Amino acid sequence: MKPFFQVKTPGEVFEILREFPPASKEETATSSALGRVTAEPVTSPENLPPFHRATVDGYAVLAKDTFGASDGVPVYLEMTGEISMGEEAREPVSAGRAIKIATGGMLPPGADAVVMEEYTNLPDDRTLEVTRACAPWDGVLRAGEDVRRGDVILEAGRLIRPQEIGALSALGITRLRVYRKPVVSLIATGDELVDPEQVPAPGQIRNLNQYSIGAMIEECGGVVDHRGIVRDDYETIRQVVTDALERTDLVLISGGSSIGRKDFTVEIIESLGEPGVLVHGISISPGKPTIVARVGSKPVIGLPGHPVSAMIVFEVFGKSLIRHLAGLPIEGGNWRRTLHARLSRNVASAQGREDYIRVALEKSNGGWVAQPVLGKSSMISTMVKADGYIRIDLNSEGLREGQEVEVILF
Amino acid sequence: MKPFFQVKTPGEVFEILREFPPASKEETATSSALGRVTAEPVTSPENLPPFHRATVDGYAVLAKDTFGASDGVPVYLEMTGEISMGEEAREPVSAGRAIKIATGGMLPPGADAVVMEEYTNLPDDRTLEVTRACAPWDGVLRAGEDVRRGDVILEAGRLIRPQEIGALSALGITRLRVYRKPVVSLIATGDELVDPEQVPAPGQIRNLNQYSIGAMIEECGGVVDHRGIVRDDYETIRQVVTDALERTDLVLISGGSSIGRKDFTVEIIESLGEPGVLVHGISISPGKPTIVARVGSKPVIGLPGHPVSAMIVFEVFGKSLIRHLAGLPIEGGNWRRTLHARLSRNVASAQGREDYIRVALEKSNGGWVAQPVLGKSSMISTMVKADGYIRIDLNSEGLREGQEVEVILF
Repeated sequence: MKPFFQVKTPGEVFEILREFPPASKEETATSSALGRVTAEPVTSPENLPPFHRATVDGYAVLAKDTFGASDGVPVYLEMTGEISMGEEAREPVSAGRAIKIATGGMLPPGADAVVMEEYTNLPDDRTLEVTRACAPWDGVLRAGEDVRRGDVILEAGRLIRPQEIGALSALGITRLRVYRKPVVSLIATGDELVDPEQVPAPGQIRNLNQYSIGAMIEECGGVVDHRGIVRDDYETIRQVVTDALERTDLVLISGGSSIGRKDFTVEIIESLGEPGVLVHGISISPGKPTIVARVGSKPVIGLPGHPVSAMIVFEVFGKSLIRHLAGLPIEGGNWRRTLHARLSRNVASAQGREDYIRVALEKSNGGWVAQPVLGKSSMISTMVKADGYIRIDLNSEGLREGQEVEVILF
Repeated sequence: MKPFFQVKTPGEVFEILREFPPASKEETATSSALGRVTAEPVTSPENLPPFHRATVDGYAVLAKDTFGASDGVPVYLEMTGEISMGEEAREPVSAGRAIKIATGGMLPPGADAVVMEEYTNLPDDRTLEVTRACAPWDGVLRAGEDVRRGDVILEAGRLIRPQEIGALSALGITRLRVYRKPVVSLIATGDELVDPEQVPAPGQIRNLNQYSIGAMIEECGGVVDHRGIVRDDYETIRQVVTDALERTDLVLISGGSSIGRKDFTVEIIESLGEPGVLVHGISISPGKPTIVARVGSKPVIGLPGHPVSAMIVFEVFGKSLIRHLAGLPIEGGNWRRTLHARLSRNVASAQGREDYIRVALEKSNGGWVAQPVLGKSSMISTMVKADGYIRIDLNSEGLREGQEVEVILF
């Protein structure tokens, strides 16, 4: 066992988390890849669109035939039919002629513009009157103009959003190499815990962190492997942690880092392999009694037992780590929802400690006011009342009433 | 068929969307209720915690026994054992005595404070030296202090976040009345469309909107009912829409609102029931050719065919409608992720039209710069390049280079 508390700053903890290797890679269907991360660059196998396409409803023409056309001096062209949607346009358009075409239709050979329906009249069914000039390629999306064959459309490490799924589908890329979703073991320790279905006897309490943290894991793209309640017994915990380390990407032990149990959890982690416990205490409030360990290549996190502390530590470090294991940058991104608000009252903070203040938001004069939610970190109701939190820097002595703050939304 | 285009402003469209009734209610397991919305208020059946609990590791005492204690003048108490975690504390603490207790332990009768381990010494195994005074209830979470029996812990219409799942689990509320997840039919019309697995023949193109919009439905909490590609044939489309209206909560028709197909879609919707088409065109760009209809109590939306237009319309109106059907406020909330950035160049905008400008974000001097992504609304690659979008108001003539803008992140 390490001889002293290894309290680290949040910055130091992020440096440690950054060193863990991402989860392995796998193939997935593009249509179900929302929220996944590309493990390799994706190159386009073809042009999009594969042919010149009309982007408006109108008439395929030679642009130069329309030069000089206006309301006062229209141009007259000969109508020679209509492009059927979804069929090859074989009949060319020659000088002085026009073919009717709908949005998405294939531009016929010879044509280099589509004049919009709004700028035409049909004096008879063989004649098109054009009242506005087209420049070449007006009303047309050219072959390869959207995506060109051989273009890297997604670099490695890109988050798959709906538009990426759309673009890949359009290019016929129906399968994709991505990082696996990190599987997270969630172990709750404590002889006082019972499952939510049970009626606690005197001295017992229901297992809360399993479900709040479980939902947070789900929320940030991890897969929860619920290991349930494990009794405070060295051999039992050691066996569960050993199995969890073998089968999953990250092991979270809830309630394993309070002072009463700390030596226990630390001892077990240290017994499992090198390098063992790297962080024992983080200079944040709430959430100081947090353990970060590495066994071989895998992270083990001991979360504080108080429900608010556990959620804040998971919010700040756990989510970042899961994103990192999933192939994304660990922090500094803009993936958390934030808004600006004015603080309703002064908030004190100790220097050398990063404070996380729960706040409730209220609209006032068109802006937001952030009202600190007071209450012990053992009270889950304070989190239910809070809309988000504000972070007070290590070097700050606190914030003033009326000051603009950035609220990170839950 | 309505005799003229019924172009509405975004504000008018939101008013119309607000009139749709939410989806029906159902019961769900609390542990899988993340992102759902309460359909009824939830009242606590019991106190949380059910008994006085220690919030620190230390010693259960009578606070008054410690009054006046300091490093210089410590107080000495008689140690009388230890509270076992998860068991009823039956042995009372009387004046002059102390019992060892860990965080989460049940406070024994008689005790009204827990003195932290840090402020104690053990000169021998029967004697506790206390070096700091406790106020009554220091180190204790009292029975019902977190949640009191009979308290409304969640009003109706509340979004279930991880903390709500935690609080409900702690109270033994394992099942919950919520709104059903809205089921959304997604119909793609167009004779030119083929599935992503297919190689398009000349004139054909792969079905993109089905997958981009499908992922967006998933993202905002809806359930997609993929109806696939339907040929441009009155009877076929009518039959698919009729069935979709019967079985699902919202019908989205992609590609059904461009000018070439508009009469078709409008005619079909009008034939299905009252009141029919309510909006035919919205004063936004891109996305003007959008249809909003109501058949009985159910919404039917015709999305523009261009991929960018379809996504923007879905982002602005579709997500709001799905949230509304799921029991949440339709707009004005703070559920979209935003950040502030400076615009890299001037952007012009027509008055009387709300413009949605795709932007890519870059870090610069510690802040963000928003670079407009140029390109036609038929180009999905512009959405892949964009990190978010900015909204230019109906009454604005544009934005200036260097101006601070709010970027709504995709």
